[in-house]
Amino acid sequence: MSHYEICFQGEHYAFSELAAKKFLGESAICHPRETFEQVFQSVKAKNPILGIVPIENTLSGSIHQNYDLLLENSVRIVGEVNLRIELHLIAAPGVTLSQIKSVYSHPAAIGQCRNFWKRYPHIEIVPTYDTAGSVRLIAERGLIDAAAIASQQAANDYGMSIILSEIEDYPENYTRFLIISTEDIHFGTPNKTSIVFATRHIPGALFKSLSVFFLRDLNLLKIESRPLRGKPWQYIFYLDFEGSMAQQSCQNALRHLEEITEFIKVLGSYPAAT
Amino acid sequence: MSHYEICFQGEHYAFSELAAKKFLGESAICHPRETFEQVFQSVKAKNPILGIVPIENTLSGSIHQNYDLLLENSVRIVGEVNLRIELHLIAAPGVTLSQIKSVYSHPAAIGQCRNFWKRYPHIEIVPTYDTAGSVRLIAERGLIDAAAIASQQAANDYGMSIILSEIEDYPENYTRFLIISTEDIHFGTPNKTSIVFATRHIPGALFKSLSVFFLRDLNLLKIESRPLRGKPWQYIFYLDFEGSMAQQSCQNALRHLEEITEFIKVLGSYPAAT
Repeated sequence: MSHYEICFQGEHYAFSELAAKKFLGESAICHPRETFEQVFQSVKAKNPILGIVPIENTLSGSIHQNYDLLLENSVRIVGEVNLRIELHLIAAPGVTLSQIKSVYSHPAAIGQCRNFWKRYPHIEIVPTYDTAGSVRLIAERGLIDAAAIASQQAANDYGMSIILSEIEDYPENYTRFLIISTEDIHFGTPNKTSIVFATRHIPGALFKSLSVFFLRDLNLLKIESRPLRGKPWQYIFYLDFEGSMAQQSCQNALRHLEEITEFIKVLGSYPAAT
Repeated sequence: MSHYEICFQGEHYAFSELAAKKFLGESAICHPRETFEQVFQSVKAKNPILGIVPIENTLSGSIHQNYDLLLENSVRIVGEVNLRIELHLIAAPGVTLSQIKSVYSHPAAIGQCRNFWKRYPHIEIVPTYDTAGSVRLIAERGLIDAAAIASQQAANDYGMSIILSEIEDYPENYTRFLIISTEDIHFGTPNKTSIVFATRHIPGALFKSLSVFFLRDLNLLKIESRPLRGKPWQYIFYLDFEGSMAQQSCQNALRHLEEITEFIKVLGSYPAAT
């Protein structure tokens, strides 16, 4: 799997890049992008053909912007990878915790360290666009009253020190990343499928939608609801289930689901992360 | 319903305060709080006995922090109100759009104006803790190259001007707010119930959970999933359904649901917003 090229949001040593290398191997060439939208645009332009985006974290929840982008863009999910997220408080060498007045990080990382914020309520929280980018900012500006929350790799790369290690609320802190492409790339036997759909306005629509999987012994792994923009109090649903669209039972379930829904989009069948 | 006291997150003329006055009447006394957590803490200390928090927006989706706080705190939902959110670009009098280099607002409001950001990609987005507070910041600092996104009332109150009106992506932009209390306050006949539960590790658990409502003709209004902190890839579910816990059918459904779930918490039965 060597020498794949992939784009990610953030700066080098962002968790998305670490996840890309976990999935593709250390030799993967990773191209930084400023926004998730730019990751999707790059993949659609096949420059490069692969992209990686975080979709959910086991502490802070789903990254809804990427759910929305999966719906809006013609890309497919070709793989997934789970990465253990260890968050460290990082500052310039020699700086101690008592000197820290503000802490910079991505909102997702901020939301995974609630116990830390409760313990140090005087510290100002500064949301930024990237964890690794926050370390770079502190380093470049030579700040000695500020710290960042990021990966150990980011601390090493910018010559910064870890003041407090693993400040996330629970050690069971994982982020699930999706690998996206417009091409039909196989990273193993697909055994998991992601879809998005909107139900018709009929009684028990969501229950009936889930029944098409239950009746065929297809295990649901995740459900996520998002508002249907322009139609107040109506929702679209993102479902992950065990199985591949190559299987007859999954095709039957989706054909049944079409009877109940206004639209369905298959986001992809891919090998589940182990 | 006059002279109720209620606390809200943000500064005066925040949408939460406008929603509180829509629900309780113009004579309601509204106390600002800095964070949602402080709203919950105030209500638990009965200082005042009522609080209001946004729970979902029809464009940007659920406000997950408040879902988490509903689970963590012993408060009940006693009412709800929907408010049409009109978002205006607000700056100092005389300032024109071409002068604007940065725009300040709450992340929720920022997320409801995606088309605006696409049209003006050179404008820097600055997330803040409050819409009305952003107007105050621009006014107090006398900024002439910055604008805020907030309500018309906020513009009026701080003597600022609307440069562009209704810049939200769709006019169908509503936020649903919940009124919370530790006391059993009635604002009408309850006909809607909110619960939160975690399913057991059994096949088809979510499907079976929804069946307890379907089998009793109880209409589901919303489902929201959140990660179960400390248990990766497991979820808790927030459900809204039509009916009140005073009804036998709802009590039966919940008793049935207990067979399938590890825990259930009834967040409250209350009159649905009209």
